[in-house]
Amino acid sequence: MVRISILGYGKVGRQLARAFHEAGDIELVQVYNRTAVKESASGTMKFVSDLADLSEADIYIISVSDKAVAELASQLPFHDKLVVHTAGSLAQEALGVRNRNGVFYPLQTFSHRRAVDFNGLPVFVGAQHADDLELLKKATTALHARTFEVDDKQRKALHVAAVFACNFSNHLYKIADETCRESNIPFDVLHPLILETAQKIMVMEPAKAQTGPAVRHDEATIGAHLEFLSDPVKKELYQLITRSIQHA
Amino acid sequence: MVRISILGYGKVGRQLARAFHEAGDIELVQVYNRTAVKESASGTMKFVSDLADLSEADIYIISVSDKAVAELASQLPFHDKLVVHTAGSLAQEALGVRNRNGVFYPLQTFSHRRAVDFNGLPVFVGAQHADDLELLKKATTALHARTFEVDDKQRKALHVAAVFACNFSNHLYKIADETCRESNIPFDVLHPLILETAQKIMVMEPAKAQTGPAVRHDEATIGAHLEFLSDPVKKELYQLITRSIQHA
Repeated sequence: MVRISILGYGKVGRQLARAFHEAGDIELVQVYNRTAVKESASGTMKFVSDLADLSEADIYIISVSDKAVAELASQLPFHDKLVVHTAGSLAQEALGVRNRNGVFYPLQTFSHRRAVDFNGLPVFVGAQHADDLELLKKATTALHARTFEVDDKQRKALHVAAVFACNFSNHLYKIADETCRESNIPFDVLHPLILETAQKIMVMEPAKAQTGPAVRHDEATIGAHLEFLSDPVKKELYQLITRSIQHA
Repeated sequence: MVRISILGYGKVGRQLARAFHEAGDIELVQVYNRTAVKESASGTMKFVSDLADLSEADIYIISVSDKAVAELASQLPFHDKLVVHTAGSLAQEALGVRNRNGVFYPLQTFSHRRAVDFNGLPVFVGAQHADDLELLKKATTALHARTFEVDDKQRKALHVAAVFACNFSNHLYKIADETCRESNIPFDVLHPLILETAQKIMVMEPAKAQTGPAVRHDEATIGAHLEFLSDPVKKELYQLITRSIQHA
């Protein structure tokens, strides 16, 4: 049984707390949040809003905004415990030296009101000590997640890749949504296309899956699309991504 | 029974030919391709490579590159038949006046060696005559596709939206792939994230699904990512999409 406490009940902390609460071989000891949590859905979870109330645990997982990690870590009322953060681009050392440092970075997009499935999800872990790494692996195993050991630099590369593949793709979906609405077309007609585009690269390299006017060098269609787009930022995006596809 | 012939055996024509060949209530009369098709998988399909060999059909579907549509349409050895094209951004009138014009635009990304599922897929149709529209709807119904009537301007909007949602997203997947490889990380660790990003917008507007450093205005992470990216085009893309997210 691994005892875990979650510090920070935001988008990531909420999903981790729920997942660990439901997982076998894990005791979710406490969930700390700076402000009191009033949530009927929290059920039997134990919430605290004063760091002084934190009990003994094997792993303390800090899931607050990147810039708040160092301060929270420095305020912990204990030392020589395993304390990890969940951030993609933050060095492990940001956690300071009062406790044993580590990282527990689940590679997923977290939104309120959408349960994340940790089954098969890659979780990137790091720790200073072999025993701590084992503890983190027990935690990922309890979630049925896939575990990878990476260093800070690889984790940052992963985060950059995730920003392109997820955050930026989602913004392109938003532009597509707006483009449909402006022509009185329901956005859901694009759902099969969006899903197929995502599924295709599970079996085919993205470079080989590329379709469309840019890769075909279909300058007539590209010109018609640029003429169609009245918003200058969307036009600039269209031009830059087209150029990037053509010079890849 | 609707008799259909496909003119052009490229990425789109190949999938349409297969789907109509397998569909009930449809007779796939012939598949024309400028060069002879040698394909064992074609099975019982009838291929011709001379327009003079085309037999009688109810719908002739031209699926060649946009710039070749007008010329092929002008060379057809018959008149007053229903001839449609499958292009997103080409006016219906590009088909000329010798035959009755129409459009049959399936909204999907087509690659060789990946079968497209037409079940539930939106197909955008247009025709000059009500009878022709009915014929096209019989064809989409036989594929179990969803049928929408749109004009040229709406179809162009759809194509622009599809370029952003599919072609451009795929290019971002490619950048993510390269970023992973350069750090010795297998790209497949991003698969769950990419799939979740696509699935999330089936139940949530893209505007509400947006996550990541840009929408959080996390300038420290954005700065770290820009420093990480050495390729000038990727850096420019990161900056422009971030700006677009922040000013949305």
